[in-house]
Amino acid sequence: MANSIGKLFTITSFGESHGRCVGVIIDGCPAGLAITNDDIQKEVDRRKPKSNISTTRKEPETVEILSGIYDGRTTGAPICLLVWNTDADSSVYEKIKSLPRPGHADYTNFVKYGGYNDYRGGGRSSGRITAGYVMAGAIAKKLLNSIGIEILAHTIEIGEIKAAEKVPEEIKTTVENNTLRCADPKAAKQMMKIIEKAQAEGDSVGGIIECIALNVPAGLGEPVFDTLEGDLAKAMFSIPAVKGIEFGSGFSSTRKKGSENNDPFRIEEGKVATATNNAGGILGGISNGMPVVLRVVIKPTPSISIQQNTVDLETMTNSTVEIHGRHDACIVPRAVPVVEAMMAITICDFAKRAGIIPEVIG
Amino acid sequence: MANSIGKLFTITSFGESHGRCVGVIIDGCPAGLAITNDDIQKEVDRRKPKSNISTTRKEPETVEILSGIYDGRTTGAPICLLVWNTDADSSVYEKIKSLPRPGHADYTNFVKYGGYNDYRGGGRSSGRITAGYVMAGAIAKKLLNSIGIEILAHTIEIGEIKAAEKVPEEIKTTVENNTLRCADPKAAKQMMKIIEKAQAEGDSVGGIIECIALNVPAGLGEPVFDTLEGDLAKAMFSIPAVKGIEFGSGFSSTRKKGSENNDPFRIEEGKVATATNNAGGILGGISNGMPVVLRVVIKPTPSISIQQNTVDLETMTNSTVEIHGRHDACIVPRAVPVVEAMMAITICDFAKRAGIIPEVIG
Amino acid sequence: MANSIGKLFTITSFGESHGRCVGVIIDGCPAGLAITNDDIQKEVDRRKPKSNISTTRKEPETVEILSGIYDGRTTGAPICLLVWNTDADSSVYEKIKSLPRPGHADYTNFVKYGGYNDYRGGGRSSGRITAGYVMAGAIAKKLLNSIGIEILAHTIEIGEIKAAEKVPEEIKTTVENNTLRCADPKAAKQMMKIIEKAQAEGDSVGGIIECIALNVPAGLGEPVFDTLEGDLAKAMFSIPAVKGIEFGSGFSSTRKKGSENNDPFRIEEGKVATATNNAGGILGGISNGMPVVLRVVIKPTPSISIQQNTVDLETMTNSTVEIHGRHDACIVPRAVPVVEAMMAITICDFAKRAGIIPEVIG
Amino acid sequence: MANSIGKLFTITSFGESHGRCVGVIIDGCPAGLAITNDDIQKEVDRRKPKSNISTTRKEPETVEILSGIYDGRTTGAPICLLVWNTDADSSVYEKIKSLPRPGHADYTNFVKYGGYNDYRGGGRSSGRITAGYVMAGAIAKKLLNSIGIEILAHTIEIGEIKAAEKVPEEIKTTVENNTLRCADPKAAKQMMKIIEKAQAEGDSVGGIIECIALNVPAGLGEPVFDTLEGDLAKAMFSIPAVKGIEFGSGFSSTRKKGSENNDPFRIEEGKVATATNNAGGILGGISNGMPVVLRVVIKPTPSISIQQNTVDLETMTNSTVEIHGRHDACIVPRAVPVVEAMMAITICDFAKRAGIIPEVIG
Repeated sequence: MANSIGKLFTITSFGESHGRCVGVIIDGCPAGLAITNDDIQKEVDRRKPKSNISTTRKEPETVEILSGIYDGRTTGAPICLLVWNTDADSSVYEKIKSLPRPGHADYTNFVKYGGYNDYRGGGRSSGRITAGYVMAGAIAKKLLNSIGIEILAHTIEIGEIKAAEKVPEEIKTTVENNTLRCADPKAAKQMMKIIEKAQAEGDSVGGIIECIALNVPAGLGEPVFDTLEGDLAKAMFSIPAVKGIEFGSGFSSTRKKGSENNDPFRIEEGKVATATNNAGGILGGISNGMPVVLRVVIKPTPSISIQQNTVDLETMTNSTVEIHGRHDACIVPRAVPVVEAMMAITICDFAKRAGIIPEVIG
Repeated sequence: MANSIGKLFTITSFGESHGRCVGVIIDGCPAGLAITNDDIQKEVDRRKPKSNISTTRKEPETVEILSGIYDGRTTGAPICLLVWNTDADSSVYEKIKSLPRPGHADYTNFVKYGGYNDYRGGGRSSGRITAGYVMAGAIAKKLLNSIGIEILAHTIEIGEIKAAEKVPEEIKTTVENNTLRCADPKAAKQMMKIIEKAQAEGDSVGGIIECIALNVPAGLGEPVFDTLEGDLAKAMFSIPAVKGIEFGSGFSSTRKKGSENNDPFRIEEGKVATATNNAGGILGGISNGMPVVLRVVIKPTPSISIQQNTVDLETMTNSTVEIHGRHDACIVPRAVPVVEAMMAITICDFAKRAGIIPEVIG
Repeated sequence: MANSIGKLFTITSFGESHGRCVGVIIDGCPAGLAITNDDIQKEVDRRKPKSNISTTRKEPETVEILSGIYDGRTTGAPICLLVWNTDADSSVYEKIKSLPRPGHADYTNFVKYGGYNDYRGGGRSSGRITAGYVMAGAIAKKLLNSIGIEILAHTIEIGEIKAAEKVPEEIKTTVENNTLRCADPKAAKQMMKIIEKAQAEGDSVGGIIECIALNVPAGLGEPVFDTLEGDLAKAMFSIPAVKGIEFGSGFSSTRKKGSENNDPFRIEEGKVATATNNAGGILGGISNGMPVVLRVVIKPTPSISIQQNTVDLETMTNSTVEIHGRHDACIVPRAVPVVEAMMAITICDFAKRAGIIPEVIG
Repeated sequence: MANSIGKLFTITSFGESHGRCVGVIIDGCPAGLAITNDDIQKEVDRRKPKSNISTTRKEPETVEILSGIYDGRTTGAPICLLVWNTDADSSVYEKIKSLPRPGHADYTNFVKYGGYNDYRGGGRSSGRITAGYVMAGAIAKKLLNSIGIEILAHTIEIGEIKAAEKVPEEIKTTVENNTLRCADPKAAKQMMKIIEKAQAEGDSVGGIIECIALNVPAGLGEPVFDTLEGDLAKAMFSIPAVKGIEFGSGFSSTRKKGSENNDPFRIEEGKVATATNNAGGILGGISNGMPVVLRVVIKPTPSISIQQNTVDLETMTNSTVEIHGRHDACIVPRAVPVVEAMMAITICDFAKRAGIIPEVIG
């Protein structure tokens, strides 16, 4: 019941996994931004299942622009974008309607909406809803590019396999080289093995995605409550399966002294910079001009085909559930463009609030 | 420039570290709630520096109720609470005005506010601002108690020392037994040593706080954007030095398979419960009736007395800064009531949104 | 750039006059409300041009439900509704693109959106956008009906013709008896003559609509800023051509003494009521249990075919404009359901805020 | 329960008529604006009762700046301002506690807050609350002046006496020449007689205030919902006793044809202007560069000393009430600076949203 986010650059999500469509409205995009269907389709396609690690439904997912763009440019009016649902098979959900799947939102939605929620395919809690996020993210990225900001996410951990650290330039050129969107090809191979093993067992694995915003000017963020970290975090938790977030040295900062964790300032090419970036580009909730760096953990997708204990909500007795639908053993790689989208959307909002994005562009 | 948080239970923060006062306005508290000065003073006192681990300023911090409470009960009007500042010594800040302290918000505030910000004592970015949070938190806790919800935080990690896991009942009875607010007395002793060592070296250490909400009914949270995780995270990042947050199994979920991380449902005393709580009480952004469990990491406080590299913002040259003011070598224990406050405030807001808290109480 | 309204019952408008569609998203409707296409279509049809006073475009305007309703009931998810545009003829607008029509938003949109706005048919400033309002209003009315509240608007003035005062029961049964939606048939005839005369001259006339909410319980409204009057007023000004609003005795209260304008309280059937209703059902921004009564003035529609002075925005010289498209000489009767819709939407929002509308219905 | 208004320039009101203080927080004021106590005190003094038409309480009302201003300039932090209450005599209210005064908010507050509201002196519904509005308005005016915008209100109607129309330049120089803030001295004398007569009879009269914003650039307003009219109207209805608002020709536009009410565009000094200003400077919810003109009606103040019928809320029986406290027979002149304040605050918000007011000033 709160399907809008952003103060000046606002997106509103709508649609269900097995309903007619999944869509989004973007309100607050400046007029004059050149946008093509391809700009948006490209991001939607990045979110699609990859054949070699996914057995999930395949849909054309053709982007439709319903409003807000005229003659190839944004008009300043709300932009409505959607993809129609075509390949939904809801039969399996009928059978398990009263058997909430562990780790899924079936039970909480049932309670909250008194059983009236559209439970088919997870309804509003499905990963499919993020197709709307990436459509909005495509616009946000285009807008950020116009002021020089780039957003870049990559897989850094799957199961217990960690990728080696890479610099942004390297990530940028290699991230799409493998299905896992991991900039370390050696780690990527090991990750793939782990996923394949989980898939063979009807099980699943999670992982960690790092997302970096480059060229963010110092001064974005509106403390004390609308901090850059706080609003990025809030945005990230709208992605199903995200259960944690950290900035810069994050949780590992407990292994450092203040003298090690503080980033010394220094002049670089006439500008203030920091020697290290343990702050993840944010001090006091405001960007400091260094790359903004966050990491989110994606829990192992709850969609597994192994039999699990659950309850029957009709009889209020213990029961079991077994789901033999289509699902991914690891959704981390598909979540990479979604994480980028939500970071782009949030930074657009702060850039507008800071007056860095003008009312009219182009 | 965004000093309000909450949709139906809203708090607005004001005041500066070395200004006249630090305060808060609570808007949306139901009428009829019995509140005494002591209820609020108690929480403010918990946030105060402890003599054995702190050399920071000592102030009476006497709570004043300026509005919204009449005849011992809330009136439904905005509640304005404040503590006057009395012991501020700003002289040290004059000297380092153009030398931003590494790890602090001095530089980002300077950029954002064009140098007009009140930099004394960190101004709005000071931990002292959280005196306002705990005053609001006192009201929020009282309100939550009226519907049976309890909030409970404790220190679980300082530096590399981890506390043993404890059940809520044990935490409740032991958490205030030591200065560190750690429910594991053995770990607490080791933590104290680490802090004393850091203090002796003019350095600092960070840590991790766990916060638990007990008896939260299923159904709180407003996905897809106002998720329970998202709004709790946003609230937590308004606490200075918080750089990461996780729910339930959080970042460690990458070391689990889906079959291990999913919490099986089962009937307990006629109600739906889960056998484990890897979800931290939240599925699909909505509470599931289990305890809501989050952990935040507090970076080592940037206030250290060791000389550090920085820049001179007037001359735009490299420089150094050394701060010999009063500061804590570890702020984690003092942040415990602040984390509780922000969790209480956020859950109040969701409880109001879910219609669980009535318009009039008592 | 602010196309959402409402705090807990929120509608988001999208679409353009000559774009692909006009639509709306309703977020915050409780789950379980029974809704049929007909419920919504009925309100859309009421807004359509009437053949005897209108020469405007005729479109089927078939309502499509894209999301949020499953199995005939709301699911708690955002409800997306739209009508496709089919009969738009944009050729006339090409010719007058740089000649802003007096009284229209052509010039202000041009300035605000740097000329990138979709100017065809007035774009976002067209009365056609209100098709979205009435779709949302249909849901809001259904929801209000479930708690006994009724919304009822009627035409009380066209040009200088005033309708005689009528009681709600009489208005209810007669308002749809004539094209003008005027409960006084004698006045309606005179109004029609005035409109026909204006139409013959290529000119237009305005009027006043009164809207009444019956059975509103005392206690709705959230002062000091979200007053019932304030939010109703804000909602009304989103209807093109509305230039004024008053509640109860409104502007005529200047002709009364306090002793005449105050409504004495009295007990009626065991309840507190007032002997008169000069307050229009609102005291201190909060409903008092009497009918909520407001009146809005609709300016003479700026769409006239008489030649008018204007400027050429390309050459920045004085010029003239003559518009021979399709237009209504009086939009007041068509605005009646729109006024009802915006009142219903606003009262829904306040009813949710007051906890009168539950989270789940039915 | 909604005591904040404004999206980027936000004010939060607190305090009660007979509580400790009346105050306001302004959040979103750019850093660097020079502000003195006198700037604010001046506006507070304008709102004070005038000895010759008022018997109400006299208080020093000395403005205190609690936060957000340092070294004579705004810091970008929330600005907290208040005046302490000193002269409140609550005894009269104890006696009439269960007898709601007709035309007042006593009854609606009683219902909404379950009798826990601070009823003394009208509590939050008292005109005294507007002392906070004018303090915030003082900051808003200063800010608007920095970009050339001026706000100017005057009394145009008291009872049935109408002032002659005056041009802004004349209003500016004469408005403070008489107690009534009426730019037409002849009308002012008649108005005074009417007020004196009402006062002698223990009765009251209302009136109309016109408020004009000069030099507002074209492009302010955020349709379709955050229209310039809509947000100005919402702001005005937060002033006690306002029951109607109109823009430009407003309600009188029903007496015009479209060809008369449309304002023809023309080039004036190289800029687009309109020959007339029936639109009140607003087209399609967006400013058009002409003066923004609104009028609000202030109902006869409900505070009269004549005996009135009411009910006893304890016994639920009919009763009477007679109030012999201090009150104004006409509050219109005192409301003039309040209307200015709320217009200034609203236009500041839109100017910030349009990017016209920078983040840092001076």
